[in-house]
Amino acid sequence: MSDPVMFTLDPDERVTHWYNILADLPTPPPPPLHPGTREPVGPDDLAPLFPMELIGQEVSTERYIEIPEPVLDVYAQYRPSPLYRARRWETELGTPARIYYKYEGVSPAGSHKVNTAVPQVYYNKLSGITKLTTETGAGQWGTALSYASALFGVECEVWQVGVSYDTKPQRRTLIEVFGGKVHRSPSQLTESGKAFPEGHPGSLGIAISEAVEVAAQDPATKYSLGSVLNHVLLHQTVIGQEALLQLAKAGERSVDVVYGCAGGGSNFAGLVFPFLRENLVGGAGTRIVAVEPTSCPTLTRGEYRYDFGDTAGMTPLMKMYTLGHDFVPSPIHAGGLRYHGMAPLVSHAVHEGLIEAMALHQNECFEAGVEFARSQGIVPAPESAHALAAARRDALAAKESGEEKVIVIGLSGHGLLELGAYAQFLSGSLEDDALSETELAEALGSVPVV
Amino acid sequence: MSDPVMFTLDPDERVTHWYNILADLPTPPPPPLHPGTREPVGPDDLAPLFPMELIGQEVSTERYIEIPEPVLDVYAQYRPSPLYRARRWETELGTPARIYYKYEGVSPAGSHKVNTAVPQVYYNKLSGITKLTTETGAGQWGTALSYASALFGVECEVWQVGVSYDTKPQRRTLIEVFGGKVHRSPSQLTESGKAFPEGHPGSLGIAISEAVEVAAQDPATKYSLGSVLNHVLLHQTVIGQEALLQLAKAGERSVDVVYGCAGGGSNFAGLVFPFLRENLVGGAGTRIVAVEPTSCPTLTRGEYRYDFGDTAGMTPLMKMYTLGHDFVPSPIHAGGLRYHGMAPLVSHAVHEGLIEAMALHQNECFEAGVEFARSQGIVPAPESAHALAAARRDALAAKESGEEKVIVIGLSGHGLLELGAYAQFLSGSLEDDALSETELAEALGSVPVV
Repeated sequence: MSDPVMFTLDPDERVTHWYNILADLPTPPPPPLHPGTREPVGPDDLAPLFPMELIGQEVSTERYIEIPEPVLDVYAQYRPSPLYRARRWETELGTPARIYYKYEGVSPAGSHKVNTAVPQVYYNKLSGITKLTTETGAGQWGTALSYASALFGVECEVWQVGVSYDTKPQRRTLIEVFGGKVHRSPSQLTESGKAFPEGHPGSLGIAISEAVEVAAQDPATKYSLGSVLNHVLLHQTVIGQEALLQLAKAGERSVDVVYGCAGGGSNFAGLVFPFLRENLVGGAGTRIVAVEPTSCPTLTRGEYRYDFGDTAGMTPLMKMYTLGHDFVPSPIHAGGLRYHGMAPLVSHAVHEGLIEAMALHQNECFEAGVEFARSQGIVPAPESAHALAAARRDALAAKESGEEKVIVIGLSGHGLLELGAYAQFLSGSLEDDALSETELAEALGSVPVV
Repeated sequence: MSDPVMFTLDPDERVTHWYNILADLPTPPPPPLHPGTREPVGPDDLAPLFPMELIGQEVSTERYIEIPEPVLDVYAQYRPSPLYRARRWETELGTPARIYYKYEGVSPAGSHKVNTAVPQVYYNKLSGITKLTTETGAGQWGTALSYASALFGVECEVWQVGVSYDTKPQRRTLIEVFGGKVHRSPSQLTESGKAFPEGHPGSLGIAISEAVEVAAQDPATKYSLGSVLNHVLLHQTVIGQEALLQLAKAGERSVDVVYGCAGGGSNFAGLVFPFLRENLVGGAGTRIVAVEPTSCPTLTRGEYRYDFGDTAGMTPLMKMYTLGHDFVPSPIHAGGLRYHGMAPLVSHAVHEGLIEAMALHQNECFEAGVEFARSQGIVPAPESAHALAAARRDALAAKESGEEKVIVIGLSGHGLLELGAYAQFLSGSLEDDALSETELAEALGSVPVV
């Protein structure tokens, strides 16, 4: 029998707890501040938006948090997600590197987002909530929340970033197939939305403002966020925990480098925090790299300071790398990476030098994506293609140096609903945006300093 | 731990042989005839189109045929495909039936078609072929052949049925991402295509004629067919063999009924032939049902007689259920089911009373598809939704009768590239075509009788 390319886990190796990086970080991250008082926010401040169970997870410092049985039941349909060795791509690249990718595209919504959508809806349902509101950029988060809401009999209303709504009707349909309701953002349904002219391309920041505004007005409605917050990152750690177990099955004792794409930071954190623990506790020495687009270079060009998570300034102030909360990124295809900020936990780890960051142009990412598809048979999400492109550089460098490095890639989802972007790339008409110095200065100039 | 919903196989249970139903059928099916001489075709007649290894498989009566190692290597990336128990859908339906579905959507091209594309390209490559031509309807076969061709470094040219080409640009892009070249059929590149006016909606029959014509003109080019022929059905039997092993793991000793959708017959045969063997050899007593659309009711309303596989009459004459080789089905969304004929092996088994057939309207299928998506998290291909809808009828009948029956469904692929059809269904604007008596009479009147 030939060498295996797919690694799974035995039933008794199933991951049953989420891993909380807060328990192992050398220094605690700065607390979120109330937007009015500028004092650290307490559980009560968050209660209008989130159920207590999630608020508890947001501030917990417990190392492992048990995954509830009904959530494990849903996970069981698609987890453990496969870890693949990219043997054919290695051959294609002529590299001595061993390349592995952890593939979240097998989930019901086609991305990692389901990992947190399911527990979020579950805890809301437990606390008597009947409706959830949220925003969506590329559409993957809206899809995941819509699906999870259908499972638990909760209503789901989604504000989709305008440019994504206009150019990706399939995304809207998929959310609707799962039973969710979709609004184009900025909408005329909220004060936050009305502040913008009709037809405005929108941004994640604006869409968050709209969803938060609606949730805050009704006690039976809560808001659900697909990234950035501690509890969201927590839920994603099933990815990295499984990957470590699967790499052991593949016979790898150590990993040289892990690449993940980073927009709000949740898929990235979910993959890498368990690897970071190995570095912090076990001295593993794995390089951990966040990859972002040059058109929205939050970690590589943004400033580390307090800023709002949304555009209207309704969320708590969070200490994070940011391009300014009213920054509107150019409409590149990796919609999930178009966010002005970055999860505070990821930002803190980058600031402490525990994690590196790099920015790539989108054409290089699509090139890697097409090459990967032809050898591995999976069309990656444009977001995930950023991680592939970064790994590809490394694999080609290893070809020069002859180093047999072990590279792990987070493949956060498939790109089957982003084929329009691939068509543009194949026809050579895809723009290669990068944020100019002028745009950067303008964006950073508008950040409120606490 | 809660009851499992997904069943896989251990590495040592991997299916290593294709199963050949010809070895177990009580009577042999009538042979294909040469279109000119009306005599049974021999290997030499097929040599211009297919490599000898595949011709050998086409006529073989060996029960098990070994799968070559390079093919197993590719299968290893997505096989065994999961067998799921649809627990949440059962609860939703309130049925005592136990419903299982075998899901081929995890393959690189999102459907069962990869199972035969890989060995077909492999054997062609072995015999020195540098280019393959084919047709595609819904686009899934073109995608699969394009992907398999990329793996083995073979050129791939695809004639896509006009209506599918026009309404599904994503399909074309996906074929191109994998490196294949796509033509709208009927095209101006072939004599067969030029016989039709530009903008004609096309049909699988026409597209086959075009691809065959091009392959026949160049010794280094061969033709590849995604369904109908014996060797294609043979390659698909990994599906049913795995399903039987997985059902045993799920603790099922017997199966009451198996539903699969049937267009050309390959996904259906791949699933059910191993179950048919259990009936023939082991007296299993499982009902086996082919589900087709009322707008293209080949098995339920067609005639069992010799007909051509294509429109131009270039293929051998095959004894099969047919609506006439110049029948052009209405442009329903289940493009993979829009074929005038049916695989001779499936036709023979239906004619002998070993397999049943039924026809459904497309709205009932989409309704079942949406319900299934909301409970199971998978948006089924419109083709596969036919099998779901048939199973749903049975599950609801079991609710009345209280019967704890075991139902197995072939879920041949996902519908993520068919969301336009779902949008139409959700908006209530989907037509509910059925072939009228007049249309049927007209179609059947044109069949040549041998």
